[in-house]
Amino acid sequence: MVAARAVVLLSGGLDSATALAVARRDGFECHALSFRYGQRHVVELECSRMQAELQQAAQHITVDIDLRLFGGSALTADIEVPKQRAEADISTGIPVTYVPARNTIFLSYALAWAEVLGAEDIYIGVNVLDYSGYPDCRPEFIKSFEVMANLATRAGIEGSKPLCIRTPLIDLSKAEIIRLGTSMAIDYAHTSSCYDPDDTGRPCGGCDSCVLRAKGFAEVGLVDPLLQRFGMSDA
Amino acid sequence: MVAARAVVLLSGGLDSATALAVARRDGFECHALSFRYGQRHVVELECSRMQAELQQAAQHITVDIDLRLFGGSALTADIEVPKQRAEADISTGIPVTYVPARNTIFLSYALAWAEVLGAEDIYIGVNVLDYSGYPDCRPEFIKSFEVMANLATRAGIEGSKPLCIRTPLIDLSKAEIIRLGTSMAIDYAHTSSCYDPDDTGRPCGGCDSCVLRAKGFAEVGLVDPLLQRFGMSDA
Repeated sequence: MVAARAVVLLSGGLDSATALAVARRDGFECHALSFRYGQRHVVELECSRMQAELQQAAQHITVDIDLRLFGGSALTADIEVPKQRAEADISTGIPVTYVPARNTIFLSYALAWAEVLGAEDIYIGVNVLDYSGYPDCRPEFIKSFEVMANLATRAGIEGSKPLCIRTPLIDLSKAEIIRLGTSMAIDYAHTSSCYDPDDTGRPCGGCDSCVLRAKGFAEVGLVDPLLQRFGMSDA
Repeated sequence: MVAARAVVLLSGGLDSATALAVARRDGFECHALSFRYGQRHVVELECSRMQAELQQAAQHITVDIDLRLFGGSALTADIEVPKQRAEADISTGIPVTYVPARNTIFLSYALAWAEVLGAEDIYIGVNVLDYSGYPDCRPEFIKSFEVMANLATRAGIEGSKPLCIRTPLIDLSKAEIIRLGTSMAIDYAHTSSCYDPDDTGRPCGGCDSCVLRAKGFAEVGLVDPLLQRFGMSDA
C-alpha cells in the first residue's frame, strides 16, 4: 500500500523535529517545508536540512520569503532579542520575537503544497509553551485556519476529503516533547531553538527560547545534546 | 485628521485597480501589495506599478514568492492556458488556471503587513465572475479568512479593533465593475487581465479572462482602452 502524504512544517527547532517524527510514526510519507524568511537565526535551516535527512523525509523544500519587507519583529528587524527574562515574564504578553502572521503565512504555503501533492494532512509543531504569548500558536487559531483551508481549496468545492491541520505537540510541555522525541530517537544535537545564536549555531543561552529548552531538558533529567556538541554542558 | 491605513491587494488587473480606487474613495491611506509569483503574465506587475502611481498609493511593495516550487496551475507550471472556451464552460468547474491557495497566501502577506502598519482593513478585488470557478474567491472563503485573521494576530489576544477583509466588488458583474471604475476615472488602458499576453503586454484575446473582459466592456458600451492602446479595437 502506498503511504498517504503529509506536509510537515520543519523549522529546524526541537518542536518541529519532533512533529516530523510523529508524522512518520503515524505512517505518512513526509514532505518537509522550511522557510528562509529573513530570520536572524538562519542556522536553524541547516538543522532542518539535517532533520529531513536523518528522518528520511520524502522531500524537503526551503522557500524564500522575505518578511523583512514588513519588519515588526525582533527576529526579522533591528530590534534587540530580550535575554535572561524570568519565566513569569516569558509567559506574559506578546513577545517582541513574535513575527506578524508568520504561522498564517507558513500554513498557507503548506496548504498550497498539500493541494498540489494531494496531501490531506499538515503537521505543525506548535505547543502549549508557545501559545501563551504568540497568538498564532493557539488551538483556536489552528482550528479556524483548518476551517478556512477547507473553503480555500478544491476540496471546498468538490467535496473531497477534508484537510486536517495536525498539532501533535499542542498540549505538551517542553519536557513532555523532549521525552516523546527521545522515545523516537530524534537527534536533538541537530536542532536549533535559540533566537540569537552565533554564526556557528552556538546558542546564546539567555533568550526565552534557550531558557525554556534548558528547563525542559532539566525536567527530563537529560543533558541537551546540542549543548554537548558545543562543549557548553557540565555533563 | 490622519487617514486610516488599508492594505490593498493589487494584481494589475481590472478588478484590483477598481478595488484600489474604492479604498481611496472610502478615505483610506492605501498601501498596495503585489506579488511576483512565477506567473506567466508577469506584465501585470508593470500595470500594478502604474496603477499604484496613477492612484497615488502611499506605498507599493512587490513581494517575490515562487509558487513554481509547487506547480499545479496553468499560470505557474507548464500547462496550456485554454482558449476560446464558451461562456458556459468558463463558469463550470475549477479551471486549470486556478493556482492552489494563491489568495490564501496573498491575504496572509496582506495580514502580516496590516499588522505591522496598524491597518485594520484589507481590500481584495474578488468578484462574482471569479468565484464561480475559483474556491478562494467565494464569500464563505473570505469570511472564514477574516475569522482566522482575527485569531492569528495581536488583535486576537489584546482585543483591539478587529481586522476587516473588504470585497467591494464581490457582488458585481464585470460590466458593473467597469461602470464603477469608469465613474472614478480609472485608466483601464494600464490594467492587464490576460492569462497569456505576449512580452509587450498585448492580450491574447482568447483566454477566459480576455473573453470575460471583452463581454464586460461590450455590455457597458465602451471600447476597452487596453485594446485601443494595442491597436486591437475596431473603434
